[in-house]
Amino acid sequence: MTLENQPGSVGIVTTRHVELFSREAPLSLDCGATLGPVSVAYETYGTLNATASNAILVCHALSGNAHAAGLHHPEDKRYGWWDDYIGPGKPFDTRKFFVISTNNLGGCNGTTGPSSIDPVSGHPYGLRFPMITIGDMARLQRAVVTHLGIHKLLAVAGGSMGGMIALQWALDYPDQVASSIVIGSTPRLSAQNIAFNAVARQAIMSDPHFNNGDHYDGPRPEKGLALARMMAHITYLSEKGLHEKFGRRLQDRENLSYGFETDFAVESYLAYQGSSFVRRFDANTYLYITKAMDYFDPFPDPETTAKRLIPVTARFLVMCFDTDWRFDSSRSKELVKILNWNRKEVTFQELSSPHGHDAFLLDAPQYKESLAGFLNRILQETTDREAHVA
Amino acid sequence: MTLENQPGSVGIVTTRHVELFSREAPLSLDCGATLGPVSVAYETYGTLNATASNAILVCHALSGNAHAAGLHHPEDKRYGWWDDYIGPGKPFDTRKFFVISTNNLGGCNGTTGPSSIDPVSGHPYGLRFPMITIGDMARLQRAVVTHLGIHKLLAVAGGSMGGMIALQWALDYPDQVASSIVIGSTPRLSAQNIAFNAVARQAIMSDPHFNNGDHYDGPRPEKGLALARMMAHITYLSEKGLHEKFGRRLQDRENLSYGFETDFAVESYLAYQGSSFVRRFDANTYLYITKAMDYFDPFPDPETTAKRLIPVTARFLVMCFDTDWRFDSSRSKELVKILNWNRKEVTFQELSSPHGHDAFLLDAPQYKESLAGFLNRILQETTDREAHVA
Repeated sequence: MTLENQPGSVGIVTTRHVELFSREAPLSLDCGATLGPVSVAYETYGTLNATASNAILVCHALSGNAHAAGLHHPEDKRYGWWDDYIGPGKPFDTRKFFVISTNNLGGCNGTTGPSSIDPVSGHPYGLRFPMITIGDMARLQRAVVTHLGIHKLLAVAGGSMGGMIALQWALDYPDQVASSIVIGSTPRLSAQNIAFNAVARQAIMSDPHFNNGDHYDGPRPEKGLALARMMAHITYLSEKGLHEKFGRRLQDRENLSYGFETDFAVESYLAYQGSSFVRRFDANTYLYITKAMDYFDPFPDPETTAKRLIPVTARFLVMCFDTDWRFDSSRSKELVKILNWNRKEVTFQELSSPHGHDAFLLDAPQYKESLAGFLNRILQETTDREAHVA
Repeated sequence: MTLENQPGSVGIVTTRHVELFSREAPLSLDCGATLGPVSVAYETYGTLNATASNAILVCHALSGNAHAAGLHHPEDKRYGWWDDYIGPGKPFDTRKFFVISTNNLGGCNGTTGPSSIDPVSGHPYGLRFPMITIGDMARLQRAVVTHLGIHKLLAVAGGSMGGMIALQWALDYPDQVASSIVIGSTPRLSAQNIAFNAVARQAIMSDPHFNNGDHYDGPRPEKGLALARMMAHITYLSEKGLHEKFGRRLQDRENLSYGFETDFAVESYLAYQGSSFVRRFDANTYLYITKAMDYFDPFPDPETTAKRLIPVTARFLVMCFDTDWRFDSSRSKELVKILNWNRKEVTFQELSSPHGHDAFLLDAPQYKESLAGFLNRILQETTDREAHVA
């Protein structure tokens, strides 16, 4: 293997911002409300080819942002959230593909969301922000893609909620998506998923600093948001993974405290997850995004499903991880069944991992091979078709 | 089947109270502290025989109390928590057995706990209550059993935390327990279990009304306690059970609210579970009891295990339910392995149920048969031995 073939980094990247829509020509939302103007934070990696036919959109999950790969400055220690998968020689190979990543609608990292200033009032939206859906997120992304001069994407890919967005794209913009990659995701939340989201929202809304969502000038509902995150974090890890990482190991002590301090290492780890999350995330965004996930249900009954899938031309790659219990393998299999029964091309892989739901974010050779193989096939098919047309 | 053989109710029962120990001769706790006097709420069902050899102790779980069977008055609609299993013709057959049920140490239903008045200060203990363990709970129960004139129990039985107490009895009082029945339980909490307990405690202690445990005169940390209960409740039910009961059914509405009100029936159900729990349970008891569970670990390593099990003579019945994911079947199997490897007699049954962890509380014919068969064998063996001695 030559140095050139070694998987590398996209290097130093910059988050860009674009303002789309306007008060006069706003973004229409599924709830009936409109938004305009809408700012979007995005990053791109690689180079768009002359025919604008090598673009891939990657979609982040609940707490992600536009920074999917590379570093923001030379001293930056924190790579983008999918850096293991995006870069020269990696599955989303930036020597071949032009990769786009946007912060989702409703987010808190540069894209318009509840913490943004409402141009009408001059104050943050708070809970006056309209309810958004996965469909709205895809709709805004489509405007970004159009803004970048791209008509059709080679792939839309994402894990967890990002997988829902990737699925939504294939349904809503069938002529603009060659493939949809849905990883560790589900065609709908289960009652248990909704229950966990509901308790998380209750934790935030019960915080005395919540103030009905208007907490941007004062103390923020940090305890509530930390609780929500800690609880969710338990569901991101497998029981086995947590056991192997922490077991019943005590934290910084020889013996039990016989008090309410932290006894076990797992308690200390969770507290850290909670407190670091509140420094970078908005409590209102948490409310809106979990609600958008609760609402996602593109295939509520066989008739609707059939109707929605008729125009769909995307080839699908569905992947899941055996220890994921937030969205377990049966959810991915359900999606595969729906797609196959409706005569769509779908490749399915269940991968082995000790990391539970978080596995979709982590480095794993087989996962990489699967992604790369699928993407290269789609690229080949598209290139062949272009050559044929030419 | 004659009417006499129909399983019946124990009828109207009364919770009794006894004061044990004293300031001069207190209850010694594992943490090194002492408590005295200690009040205990208890109920009994059936009649103690002349040799006091037909007594069974049933142990409740986290949120249970002494009221295990029957009704408290003729208009009472709420049967005791294990009424399906205790009564004439039921597995804990009150025509044969004398069944004892106590509210656990640290509880909030008549037994001394953090909400009780500290005789020294004249105020509720609050967080000045000493940390308690599963061993301390068994120690207090033993004092009650002795008070009732019983030397040896035919069985100690319990589900979930009650199963931990039943196991503890067999280890700590080997001459006083003929059998130990451990249902839907575990020899130790996993990292995931501890994590859920830690988040539940954080929810309570983050409530602005928590006031470091001194909330008996003012508003109580109801929101925090409700959050803790809602989260825990999710873990008591199976994913499948929740799905079958609620799925994605909307609550009292035709369409999505596009707001933060309750959309789904499962949200409404959980909110009800939270709000009804806070009316009957003390937040500080929740803290102490979850911590006692976190600490429970009688078999930390093979050497300690072997040493602890040498004097143990109890016969064990271990049961679990296939959809229980709070304490899944592998935990019961681990306990069976430990007991068998240390040459203890152990009967193991994994039962099928859609009800997850809650299954140990619910009516199920096979579960009843298993309990009844085991108990009758133990009774027979004990009777034979008595006859032989006589």
